[in-house]
Amino acid sequence: MSIIECIPNVSEGRRVDVVEGIARAIRGVPGVRLLDHSSDSSHNRTVFTMAGDAAALKAAVLAMYERAVPAIDLRAHSGEHPRLGAIDVVPFVPIEDVTMEACVALAKDVGAAVASRFGVPVYLYEEASNNPARRNLEDIRRGEFEGLAAKMASPGWSPDFGPAAPHLTAGASVIGARFPLIAYNINLNTGRLDVAKKIAAAIRQSSGGFRYVKASGFELKDRGIVQVSMNLTNYEKTSIFRVFEAVKREAERYGVSILESEIVGLVPSAALNACAEYYLQLAGFNANQVLENKLRATAHD
Amino acid sequence: MSIIECIPNVSEGRRVDVVEGIARAIRGVPGVRLLDHSSDSSHNRTVFTMAGDAAALKAAVLAMYERAVPAIDLRAHSGEHPRLGAIDVVPFVPIEDVTMEACVALAKDVGAAVASRFGVPVYLYEEASNNPARRNLEDIRRGEFEGLAAKMASPGWSPDFGPAAPHLTAGASVIGARFPLIAYNINLNTGRLDVAKKIAAAIRQSSGGFRYVKASGFELKDRGIVQVSMNLTNYEKTSIFRVFEAVKREAERYGVSILESEIVGLVPSAALNACAEYYLQLAGFNANQVLENKLRATAHD
Repeated sequence: MSIIECIPNVSEGRRVDVVEGIARAIRGVPGVRLLDHSSDSSHNRTVFTMAGDAAALKAAVLAMYERAVPAIDLRAHSGEHPRLGAIDVVPFVPIEDVTMEACVALAKDVGAAVASRFGVPVYLYEEASNNPARRNLEDIRRGEFEGLAAKMASPGWSPDFGPAAPHLTAGASVIGARFPLIAYNINLNTGRLDVAKKIAAAIRQSSGGFRYVKASGFELKDRGIVQVSMNLTNYEKTSIFRVFEAVKREAERYGVSILESEIVGLVPSAALNACAEYYLQLAGFNANQVLENKLRATAHD
Repeated sequence: MSIIECIPNVSEGRRVDVVEGIARAIRGVPGVRLLDHSSDSSHNRTVFTMAGDAAALKAAVLAMYERAVPAIDLRAHSGEHPRLGAIDVVPFVPIEDVTMEACVALAKDVGAAVASRFGVPVYLYEEASNNPARRNLEDIRRGEFEGLAAKMASPGWSPDFGPAAPHLTAGASVIGARFPLIAYNINLNTGRLDVAKKIAAAIRQSSGGFRYVKASGFELKDRGIVQVSMNLTNYEKTSIFRVFEAVKREAERYGVSILESEIVGLVPSAALNACAEYYLQLAGFNANQVLENKLRATAHD
């Protein structure tokens, strides 16, 4: 059985009854597991994490719109986090026995259904987008809800599905497919912020580094150290171990060593196994050798 | 739900109908998954790998005896592998949401049932044994089926369960609980067998090395290289990465480097995750951060 992860971001993080109503709607869909939901009141935003197969997740996302569209009015919404719509972003992520292509197809199917049932315009993003200028979430969301009507009327910004103008209260949604994100930080044995910033610049794509790395340098003032904080957006092509080794080498350049690293939130087991393979110089290793994978594969028979 | 692995070794590797009859008996037990079975005709032995909870595995092991005891006569059995009984060895291994203590209790429960229902004497081994002289399988099995009657009559060798003499055709069984075994080899960039043998001696318990390592040095003649071949018998206490680093350091002593390593068969994901943690200097990592674990944990709710 295939497993897809879906992480809808909803523009409501303060009214518990609205958030709980949406969570209940998800839990009511057979075949979907709500893994987590966490609200941030200064962002005024809630991130739901759920898993299931394509059909079950489609039903769950539509059930979320059913609850969220009447309950959330973006004209009265404020919060620190940029947003375009009541259900702001809906990414589908391939986890097990499923291809990226299947997740792209699901994003398009759900996008079309959202537009036709709720009248909410939908932009496709990341792997689901056919348009390089509309691949990055940041580019699509620039101008936010307040600038959306003007943006949608401008050349190149008609939506992939639905009306060419915002939904009065629910704005627009960005729906797509992407690889699992790994939030990965490396702490350095120094208080020198310039070192963290220089290393971040050296390794991130935007300034010439690894293709699937976003990075910046921060101070952890209470500990007197600095951190290179990263998002790894495709761990198959830009591996954790290669980024770790690059940061270590760059740090040496300044006489600095790595104190520790940390994974924030979830990480696919394949990303960790790749590290064991690399450092142990494992030859001919394959995922079916992992006992738990074997147990699960047999359970599917 | 707890998962225990059970890997019975049966003294029949030539008669397909007998092996298949035993496999069918296992498959007929609800809640047990037969993950693998592989027969070796020169050993005249078949290794079954199955998984389930305690109650299901007990039923499956008893169903195996039901088929195997009437079908296998050790008086007419020959093969290269040492053996004591028709069902020779039955280890229980804790995999998920289950303690070693529970596996020890299961081994004792199954041992008592085997003795009382089939009249087969049972020795407990490894973690299930209370007697240091009867902890290692090799010590219990020394003398084999042919020497069993004399051994059982000698001081210190009355069985843990059942009659103080061998079953006429089925001999005796060794039943116990142990940690998952990892078969791990490191290939060296040299043809010098003495180097592999010296490294094996340096790292194995029996000659002063790591407590949970068994090791020997071999030639891989077709490739012109040598191998340090190992069994890691408790990866929580003697980790793969520590053994790898020790072999690498020992090899440097002889001007030799590691060509590659390999894991033969299955490996628990925790053993690989520990390698990622070590080499990436991960702080505060826990197994619930592995996406697949999170998915499964939630599925249990």
